[in-house]
Amino acid sequence: MKVILDAMGGDNAPRELVLGAVEALKECDADIVLVGRGEQILQVLAEEGHDHLPARLEISDAAEVVEMEDDPASVLRTKKNSSMARGFAMLNEGYGNVFLSAGSTGALFSGATLLAKRVRGIRRGALITVMPNVVGSKWVLLDCGANLDCTPEYLLQFGCMGSFYSELVLGIEKPRVGLLNIGTETTKGTALQREAYVLLQKAADEGLLNFVGNVESRDVMSGAADVIVADGYSGNILLKGIEGMGLSFYKLLKDMFMSSLKGKVAGLMIKDSLGGLKSLMDYNSVGGAPFLGISKPVYKIHGSAKREAVKNAILGSIKYAESGVIDRITENVDRMRLPAGSAE
Amino acid sequence: MKVILDAMGGDNAPRELVLGAVEALKECDADIVLVGRGEQILQVLAEEGHDHLPARLEISDAAEVVEMEDDPASVLRTKKNSSMARGFAMLNEGYGNVFLSAGSTGALFSGATLLAKRVRGIRRGALITVMPNVVGSKWVLLDCGANLDCTPEYLLQFGCMGSFYSELVLGIEKPRVGLLNIGTETTKGTALQREAYVLLQKAADEGLLNFVGNVESRDVMSGAADVIVADGYSGNILLKGIEGMGLSFYKLLKDMFMSSLKGKVAGLMIKDSLGGLKSLMDYNSVGGAPFLGISKPVYKIHGSAKREAVKNAILGSIKYAESGVIDRITENVDRMRLPAGSAE
Repeated sequence: MKVILDAMGGDNAPRELVLGAVEALKECDADIVLVGRGEQILQVLAEEGHDHLPARLEISDAAEVVEMEDDPASVLRTKKNSSMARGFAMLNEGYGNVFLSAGSTGALFSGATLLAKRVRGIRRGALITVMPNVVGSKWVLLDCGANLDCTPEYLLQFGCMGSFYSELVLGIEKPRVGLLNIGTETTKGTALQREAYVLLQKAADEGLLNFVGNVESRDVMSGAADVIVADGYSGNILLKGIEGMGLSFYKLLKDMFMSSLKGKVAGLMIKDSLGGLKSLMDYNSVGGAPFLGISKPVYKIHGSAKREAVKNAILGSIKYAESGVIDRITENVDRMRLPAGSAE
Repeated sequence: MKVILDAMGGDNAPRELVLGAVEALKECDADIVLVGRGEQILQVLAEEGHDHLPARLEISDAAEVVEMEDDPASVLRTKKNSSMARGFAMLNEGYGNVFLSAGSTGALFSGATLLAKRVRGIRRGALITVMPNVVGSKWVLLDCGANLDCTPEYLLQFGCMGSFYSELVLGIEKPRVGLLNIGTETTKGTALQREAYVLLQKAADEGLLNFVGNVESRDVMSGAADVIVADGYSGNILLKGIEGMGLSFYKLLKDMFMSSLKGKVAGLMIKDSLGGLKSLMDYNSVGGAPFLGISKPVYKIHGSAKREAVKNAILGSIKYAESGVIDRITENVDRMRLPAGSAE
């Protein structure tokens, strides 16, 4: 297993990317190739007391960097010597098994689609997020914002891909797949949800997945489903709405404990439990997630990730690359498509 | 001021509706007409020790009840003697100044549109929700689920109507109107958001409202805007997502306090402050909200409202009826429309 890591992407590059890689080496036996400005990478290592390259760590020099301002659709053509473009090239050449970047989500998604390429028959790659819920398990939301305008067929494919991921990576048996909607009745939602409902139910009848129907956003955190399917616009609205409410709630709670002596004492008494609350909101702790539907493992690290999150993303990407999700998608893709000639 | 109240709608009818009305009488000098099954209403009053009708309370008999199973689009035609249909008739006849119901939202919205009628030039009535945020003020979200498929022009009108409501009812000066979106840049979102952005910016340039641009769902609870404009589908997803996260978080917090003796002691120490946290999530405390864009005041009480919430809704509906929001909409409606002949 060889991991290709874009050392120059994200808010904390290259330092936290490099140090995350060093940490990951301690917890796995994979090789890691850092792609980016060699001098800067070596300087980070030197500052942290590494006089020579740690075992199983390589550096592949790339002079340019994809910036957030760059046009996502074209930057990988115009900056062929950027760490991100080089990473994709190395993945395609078979130099490594998985490529990770914390850089521009849009550029990485373009690269995944145009360079690494979708599994044949998959209409759109999907951006997923893995979240904790309050009943102690994890749920997957897709799409989270890569595909704003969706067809019912996209949602069918998201449901299947999310189900395979939940089963093979998170270890959930017969994952319950739910369709995000504004009510549980089959007639709820716009034409998109109503038509996707029919396709998902048909796929369930054929044994492809375990469809539990419409799920309201109110119920996602209490464990109503293991996989929530949504168009990228409303998926993103839900994801960030939950995040914002969690952060606001946590801030109020902290203020409450800090506002009086009695509060401070109470806060100290339950300090450990408070950490558990915080982790509920912290969907960054998993570090990142793959683009599902791409024919090779391409993994997005959260832009703000620090070394711990980078390490978790690297370990997660190895698990994903070894999970067989891509094979499962490829084998089943014909069952995840509308009949030829039908309206999309 | 005379309030027409559907005594038979909602989960707790007629008891909590009747008792909410009795409570409201103590806090205002309006008359209230209870519409519904007179015998049942009198029985509730008798059980609570009222031997005769309280002053300023009337009963208007209506034998039928709109049920949740009834088709919202047609029930007010087929059940002309229902409390909801009678209430609309009384509002239209000028017997009262405002009509409230906790019954089927769909049926009430149909009645508002087809019987009370929209302000001429308003494309769609909007369902709004008033929510607290963590900086101590209130924000308004519209639409919350009445209009799933929207045009840019609808969103322009929602923005203006929400702004008038925020100013005239909530007392917020120059309310900051934000467009719900997945990023703050003007290019973000689907065609709907991009086109609505242009219309809202133009309205702001003309002094009709104070547009602050796109707002991410992550920032609504921390006070990024006073009015959030959305299509009904994503508005509903956001609203219920926030609600679900709040409830989940609160449950975890409670479990945390209850799981150990130390936790119980700590919980007792900050019991009062915890109430404040709970009220943050409790968007039901306001009791309900009007349909904006309707030419007469029609007010939706939350279906699960108990007497306190019913009382709050009645007092809120009086404030709304006296606020001048409907006049303000009527006076400005020509500025809230696309030029004739332009694509909607």
